[in-house]
Amino acid sequence: MFTLVIYDISDDELRMKVAQACKRFGLVRVQKSAFSGRIRSSLRKELIAVLNALVKDTEDNIQVYVVCEPDLSLKVELGKPFAGEDSDMLV
Amino acid sequence: MFTLVIYDISDDELRMKVAQACKRFGLVRVQKSAFSGRIRSSLRKELIAVLNALVKDTEDNIQVYVVCEPDLSLKVELGKPFAGEDSDMLV
Repeated sequence: MFTLVIYDISDDELRMKVAQACKRFGLVRVQKSAFSGRIRSSLRKELIAVLNALVKDTEDNIQVYVVCEPDLSLKVELGKPFAGEDSDMLV
Repeated sequence: MFTLVIYDISDDELRMKVAQACKRFGLVRVQKSAFSGRIRSSLRKELIAVLNALVKDTEDNIQVYVVCEPDLSLKVELGKPFAGEDSDMLV
């Protein structure tokens, strides 16, 4: 299932850990604080457990959405697509 | 339909305009750079046109997702929910 992870994390190190976890589970960065990709439900649940362990006692926020293919066809991207992992300002 | 808008915008003034447009169309801030809410498809399309006009010639990126109710029931929120519009660091 297509999975979208968006996060609001102030601490650089924690933000990096969250990004690394998303990558490790096969997601791709689509914005500075957003990853997405198609992963199995079981993997999504595992990722959620990892992310929860990272932010459960913090002031930070992570939201994980599932988007089915019909809804995904309604997705609209405006402006310039994310430049990729070599972009500046990524932590 | 439940609509989620996420954005990566470096310019403070433009970011504020995007946030104001989202609010004007009835969406609520759920992260520093994310708004969501249930709005009619016609309104979503109008919002997309407004947002496109704001970022079309920029390096910025906005993504608009539609999430149906069954998928929305799979949404997971971790950490602390967004503190609301009075939170610091919002532009």
